Amino acid sequence: MSGLGIGLIGTGYMGKCHALAWNGVASTFGDVARPRLVSLAEVDAETATRKAAELGFAKSTGNWRDLLDDPDIDVISVTTPNAFHAEMAVAALEAGKHVWCEKPMAPALVDAERMAAAARRAGKVAVMGYNYIQNPVIRHIRTLIQEGAIGAVNHVRVEMDEDFMADPQALFYWKSEASSGYGALDDFAVHPLSLLSVLFGHPKSVIADMAKPYAERPTAAGGARKVENHDLASVLMRLEGGVSAVLMANRSAWGRKSRIALQIYGSKGAILFDQERMNEFELYQASGRSTEQGFARVLTAPAHKPYDRFIPAPGHGLGFNDLKIIECRELIGAIQGESAHVIDFQQGLRIEQSVHAMARSFVERRWIDV
Amino acid sequence: MSGLGIGLIGTGYMGKCHALAWNGVASTFGDVARPRLVSLAEVDAETATRKAAELGFAKSTGNWRDLLDDPDIDVISVTTPNAFHAEMAVAALEAGKHVWCEKPMAPALVDAERMAAAARRAGKVAVMGYNYIQNPVIRHIRTLIQEGAIGAVNHVRVEMDEDFMADPQALFYWKSEASSGYGALDDFAVHPLSLLSVLFGHPKSVIADMAKPYAERPTAAGGARKVENHDLASVLMRLEGGVSAVLMANRSAWGRKSRIALQIYGSKGAILFDQERMNEFELYQASGRSTEQGFARVLTAPAHKPYDRFIPAPGHGLGFNDLKIIECRELIGAIQGESAHVIDFQQGLRIEQSVHAMARSFVERRWIDV
Amino acid sequence: MSGLGIGLIGTGYMGKCHALAWNGVASTFGDVARPRLVSLAEVDAETATRKAAELGFAKSTGNWRDLLDDPDIDVISVTTPNAFHAEMAVAALEAGKHVWCEKPMAPALVDAERMAAAARRAGKVAVMGYNYIQNPVIRHIRTLIQEGAIGAVNHVRVEMDEDFMADPQALFYWKSEASSGYGALDDFAVHPLSLLSVLFGHPKSVIADMAKPYAERPTAAGGARKVENHDLASVLMRLEGGVSAVLMANRSAWGRKSRIALQIYGSKGAILFDQERMNEFELYQASGRSTEQGFARVLTAPAHKPYDRFIPAPGHGLGFNDLKIIECRELIGAIQGESAHVIDFQQGLRIEQSVHAMARSFVERRWIDV
Amino acid sequence: MSGLGIGLIGTGYMGKCHALAWNGVASTFGDVARPRLVSLAEVDAETATRKAAELGFAKSTGNWRDLLDDPDIDVISVTTPNAFHAEMAVAALEAGKHVWCEKPMAPALVDAERMAAAARRAGKVAVMGYNYIQNPVIRHIRTLIQEGAIGAVNHVRVEMDEDFMADPQALFYWKSEASSGYGALDDFAVHPLSLLSVLFGHPKSVIADMAKPYAERPTAAGGARKVENHDLASVLMRLEGGVSAVLMANRSAWGRKSRIALQIYGSKGAILFDQERMNEFELYQASGRSTEQGFARVLTAPAHKPYDRFIPAPGHGLGFNDLKIIECRELIGAIQGESAHVIDFQQGLRIEQSVHAMARSFVERRWIDV
Repeated sequence: MSGLGIGLIGTGYMGKCHALAWNGVASTFGDVARPRLVSLAEVDAETATRKAAELGFAKSTGNWRDLLDDPDIDVISVTTPNAFHAEMAVAALEAGKHVWCEKPMAPALVDAERMAAAARRAGKVAVMGYNYIQNPVIRHIRTLIQEGAIGAVNHVRVEMDEDFMADPQALFYWKSEASSGYGALDDFAVHPLSLLSVLFGHPKSVIADMAKPYAERPTAAGGARKVENHDLASVLMRLEGGVSAVLMANRSAWGRKSRIALQIYGSKGAILFDQERMNEFELYQASGRSTEQGFARVLTAPAHKPYDRFIPAPGHGLGFNDLKIIECRELIGAIQGESAHVIDFQQGLRIEQSVHAMARSFVERRWIDV
Repeated sequence: MSGLGIGLIGTGYMGKCHALAWNGVASTFGDVARPRLVSLAEVDAETATRKAAELGFAKSTGNWRDLLDDPDIDVISVTTPNAFHAEMAVAALEAGKHVWCEKPMAPALVDAERMAAAARRAGKVAVMGYNYIQNPVIRHIRTLIQEGAIGAVNHVRVEMDEDFMADPQALFYWKSEASSGYGALDDFAVHPLSLLSVLFGHPKSVIADMAKPYAERPTAAGGARKVENHDLASVLMRLEGGVSAVLMANRSAWGRKSRIALQIYGSKGAILFDQERMNEFELYQASGRSTEQGFARVLTAPAHKPYDRFIPAPGHGLGFNDLKIIECRELIGAIQGESAHVIDFQQGLRIEQSVHAMARSFVERRWIDV
Repeated sequence: MSGLGIGLIGTGYMGKCHALAWNGVASTFGDVARPRLVSLAEVDAETATRKAAELGFAKSTGNWRDLLDDPDIDVISVTTPNAFHAEMAVAALEAGKHVWCEKPMAPALVDAERMAAAARRAGKVAVMGYNYIQNPVIRHIRTLIQEGAIGAVNHVRVEMDEDFMADPQALFYWKSEASSGYGALDDFAVHPLSLLSVLFGHPKSVIADMAKPYAERPTAAGGARKVENHDLASVLMRLEGGVSAVLMANRSAWGRKSRIALQIYGSKGAILFDQERMNEFELYQASGRSTEQGFARVLTAPAHKPYDRFIPAPGHGLGFNDLKIIECRELIGAIQGESAHVIDFQQGLRIEQSVHAMARSFVERRWIDV
Repeated sequence: MSGLGIGLIGTGYMGKCHALAWNGVASTFGDVARPRLVSLAEVDAETATRKAAELGFAKSTGNWRDLLDDPDIDVISVTTPNAFHAEMAVAALEAGKHVWCEKPMAPALVDAERMAAAARRAGKVAVMGYNYIQNPVIRHIRTLIQEGAIGAVNHVRVEMDEDFMADPQALFYWKSEASSGYGALDDFAVHPLSLLSVLFGHPKSVIADMAKPYAERPTAAGGARKVENHDLASVLMRLEGGVSAVLMANRSAWGRKSRIALQIYGSKGAILFDQERMNEFELYQASGRSTEQGFARVLTAPAHKPYDRFIPAPGHGLGFNDLKIIECRELIGAIQGESAHVIDFQQGLRIEQSVHAMARSFVERRWIDV
C-alpha cells in the first residue's frame, strides 16, 4: 500500500510542525502507510530547495501553484500567514486535493465562508489545524464529561494567555494593525473556542469587552504608532444548553507562555486543565468521604489514548509537536473514510462566526446571538 | 491605660471570630491596651451566659439593646445575620459607640445607605469586616503595585469560588430565597470587590451574567422548590482608570473551598494570589535574562508586615483567624486616630452600589455605570 | 470552675506563642475553663513587667524561681534557650507543677534523661512542645494510615529544610558552636522525628552523614571562625517493623522557609505533606480506574478535627500559632486526665536518643541501633 | 551529502523510540544529513518485516548479526533487553560500527567493562542512551551551576520513583529475579546517576540501604514466590569535591509515574526539577529584596537550547520522545567529530561502578569508596 502524497506550502513555525508530523506519523502509529513527502513550496526556489532537503521532501518549488498540478500529491498542507489561507485552500480543493490548513481560516468572514463552501463543493477532506483538541487529556476530558463523571456541566471558564505582546517597548509590528484582525480574539481565542466546540458545542450568545493595554507602541523610526487592535478580550457567553461560560484572552499577559486554562464545573465534580502543563489534568469528584476529597492531579498514561502510540509508560510526557502527529493521524483517518476527531472547515467556520459575533458585541456594547 | 470596652452581638461563625480577635489582639501586637470584654448579646439569656463564659466576656444579655446603654462599652461588634446589620449598626452609632460590622452591609441598598449616613452623622469609627484585605500578602501586593513592580496595571481577573451550594441534592434553604439577595453576587462577590477597592479602586461600569446551576432543589417535605437567586455570577468591568477586569463568583463550584484567585497583569510583570494558599503569592517580573524568568512563589515572612507580630520566622503561616486579629488592630488604630487600613461604611457603601449595579446590568442585559 | 494557673518563663519566639495559646485556648475550644495568666518571668524585672502587660499576665518577676513557689500556678511553660530547659523543667516538676517545655529537651542526653526521670518521679504532666504533630493534617494522616487507606506502609521520606543559616556571609553566631549541639540534627531533626514517632514509632537503627556547607563564617571583628557543627544531616533509618526511611535536614537550604516534607508509601497508595502548605495534604489511592488516579490535594476542613473549633468553613486555613492552641488544649486535657495527643518527656527522651545515635553513627561511620 | 546508514536491533519500547529519533532528527535540527534507515533486526524475520514497514526501514532480518556485515550501515542502535547489550555492542564495535546502546550497560560489571574496552579498542563512537541528560532543562541547570547562579553547590538530593512494581497483587515476573539485577538500583538509579555525572561528577563514596516492600509476590500458578531483589534503594553519597548527596529510588512508589526529582542547594540559591514536569524548573536566587524572593518556576523556551529546534514559541513543551531526538543529534555530532553532550561507554562504566559499589555497601553495611 502506497502512502498519501504530500505537498507543503510554507515552512515556518507551523510548516515545520506539519513536516515533522508527516515524517513521524507512520512510525508513531504503525497503522498507516508512510506518507510520501512529494513537494514543498516556499517564497522562492532557493529557500524551497534548502527546506526540502531539511524536511525530507523529494521536490521543491518557488511557486505554490505547482503543487496543484502535481498528480503525485494527494494532500496539501497550508501553513502560510492567515491572509493567504483562503486563496490557497480554495485552489487546492478545486484542484482535487485534500487540505490541511492552519488556523484560523481567514481574517475576513467572507473568506472563511468561501473556504467552507469550497470544501463542501469539492467533497474532499478539509481540516483545520486545531491541534490542542488532539491532546489525550482533552480527549479524556470529553470522555469524562460524556460519561457523567462530573455530572451535568453548568459553568465553564477558559483563559488563553501568552506574553509575546506584553512588552510595551517592543516595536510596533503587523500584529497591531487592524488589517491583521481584532487582536487577541482571532489571533488566539479561536483555540479555546476549538476546545469548547469539541467539549460542549458552540456559543449561542456572547458579549465581549476588548482592551488595549498599550495605546501606542514605538516604531523603528523612533516615534510611536497607535495600536489598532486589542491585545485583550473578555467574553461572557452562553453555550448550547444554556451553560454559562467566560472566555478570556490576553496576548500581553506577562509570565504566561502557552496558557490555555480550563475550569469545568458540573453537578458532581469539576475538571481543571492548563496547556502549560499539557500532560496532566485535575479531577474533583464529589463522592466518598469528604475528608479525602480533593482535586486529583492525573498524569497522562498509555490508557489515555493515543498516548500509548508514543510511549508505553505513564507520566513520561508528550510534547507540543506530538499533538500535530495525532492530528495528522486523524486527518489520514478522515481521508481513509474513518470517523475522525478533527475540526473541519464547516466547524471551523462556526468558530469564525463566534469570533466575529464577539467583536460586534464589543462595538455595539450588547449581547449578540451567534 | 485602660483598654477599649467591647460589646459583641452574635456568637456564631463570625461572632466567635471577633471574640478571638478581641482576645488576642493585645498579646499579638503588644502595642495596644488590652480590650475589656464587657458584655455579649445573644438570642436568649441562657445562650448568652454560656457563650460569655466560653468567649471570656464579663457580662451577657439576651437583649442586644442592653449594650447600647452600657457606659463601659466603647465598641460594638455586629455579627448577626445580614438582615439585622442595619438596625443594630445604626442604633449603636446613635448610642455613641464605634461599630465593627460584618460584611455585607445589608440586603437592601437603602439600608446600606442608612448605615453610611448614620456613621457620617455619628462621627464614630464604623468599619466593615472585610478581613481578606488584611492578609499581609494583599497589603504587600498593594505596595508592589504602588511601587511599580509590575508597571502600570492593565488587566485584572478575580475569581471567588466555594462549593457549599454545589450539591444539587442538598435541601433548599434560605440562601436560595430571593429575600436573601442576588446569590453569589452579594453573598460572595463583595469579598473580591473589597480586594479590588484597596488595590485599584471601584468599578466604573459593569455588565454581569448570572446563572442558576440548579433550577430547583429538594425540600424536606420530599418535593422540590424553585431556586430564586443565582449561585453563579460573571462580570465584565472597567475600573477607575479604564483597567479592564473580570469578576467571577460561584458558590456551587465543586472542589473550591475558599478560593479567591487574583490575576493582576501590568506592563512590567504580573502577580497571582489565591486565598486557599493565603500565605504565598506569585510574582513575575520581566527583567533580567529571559532564561530565568518565571513566576516566583513567595512565602510570607516577617518582612511582610504585620506577619512579624505573629511569628518571627518566615514561611510558618498565618491562619484565617489571624486576619481578623489584624483587622481588629486596624480598628483600634482608627479609634485612636491613626491612619488605618480598613473599609469603612462609606467605602462599604460603594461596594454595595457596585453589587446592585451588576444585578441591574444582568436584568437589563446592558452595561451599567456604577 | 476556675481555670489552671499559668506561669511562663521566657517571652521570646516560643514564649509569646505559649502566651497566645494560653490566651486563646478557652475561647477557641469552648470546653475548658479559661486559664488564669498568673505570672511571667523574664531576665530582668523591667522586661518582665513590660511583657506581662503585653501578654496579659497579672504578675511578673525577674527571677524564674519565684514561679516555683507561687501557689496560684499549676502549670509552667518553659520557653527559654535549650540549655536552660533541664534546670527549669526539673525544678518546676519538683515544685509540683505541670510542665510544658519547648523542644528539644536539652543539648546533653544526660540532661534529657534527668528531665524524664523528674517527670516520672513527680507524677505531673510533662509535655514537650512538638507543635507540628498537632496539625489536623498530621492527625488525619495518622488516621488514614491506621485505617489502611494506603495499605501497609513500606517506605517513608521526611525532609526538614530552612534557610536561616544559608547565607555564608552572615556572621558566626552561637548556633555554629559545638556547645549548641550537633547542628541540623538536634536543632531541627527532632521535629521530623516527632512526626515519625506519632505516625510510625521510633527508629530502630540509623546511619547518618553530616556536612558543613561552609567550613567557616565571618566574625564581627572582620576575620573568620571555623564552624563547629553541621548544618546538614542525612540519615538512613529502619523504623519499628522494618520500614525503611530517610530523614534529611538542612538549615542552609536556600529558599526553604519552613519545609517539613513527608512522603509515605504504602501497598495501596501514598501520602504527601509539606508544612509550608500546612493546610493541605495529597493522597493517592490505587483504586478505581487508572485513567483517573492521581494525587488528590485535600484542603483541611471542619471534618479534620479539631479544625472545626477554629473555623466552621473548609479551606479557610489554620496558622502556625493555631497549632500551639491545639497543643495547649491537649495539655489541659492531659492534666484533666483525658487521653491526650502529646509527646511527653518519656517520648521526648526517645527522640533525643535517636538524635544522639545518629550523631554517633556519623562519627563511627556505621549503622547504630537506637 | 549522504546521511549515516542506520541499523536497529530491537523494536520494543526503546527500539521504537530510537526509530522515531532517526526519523525525526534531520527535519528537527535541519543541520545534519538525513539518516538512511537501512535495516532492522528482530527476533524473527516476520516480525522484522512488519516492523521495518512500520518504522520506515528499507530492509529487515531475523538475525541481528546480518547488520554487522552490512556495508551500508554506519551506526547500530542496540535496544534489546539488558542481558544482550554486551554481546551485541561488542560485536558491532568489532565490526567497525558506531554504537548507540540503551542503558544500563549490562547486569554484570565484567560485561560493562568488556563493552568499555571494546569501545576504546575500536575507536568508534559508543554512546549510552541516557536520554534525561538531554532535556534542555538539565542542560540549562548545568549552565546555571557553571555560571555560579546558585553559588557553590553543597548539597544534592535526587529521587527516582515510579509505581510499575507497586501493586503487591501483580504477578511475579522477571524483574523480581536476582538474575535481573539488584532491583531499583540498576533498573533505575542509573538515570539519576547519569544526571549527577553531567552536573557534578561521579560519587566518591557511598552507603546504601535497600528494601523489599513485598517479601513475595503471587505467581500465575496460584502460589507465591519470594522476591529476590530490592524495589527500594536509598543511598548516602559524597560526590567529587565533597558535596553531600542523597539518592533515593523506588519502583514501588504508588502515584509516581516518571519522577526524577532534583534538589540542588548552593551558597547563593537553589534549583528544583522534576521529570514529571519536564518542561520547567524552579530557581531560587538569594538576591534582591527578601520580600520578593521565592522559587521562580521557569518554563522552557527557545532560549533553552535546543528547544528552539523543535518549537519557536516558549512554554509549548517538549515530550519524552523529543529527548531522544536531541540525543540522536548529539550522537551524530560525535560521529562528525563535534564536541558532544553524551555519556559514552567510559562514562557509562563509571555509572555501573557506582551501582555495584552501592550494592556492596548494602551487603557489607558500611561506606564504600567507588
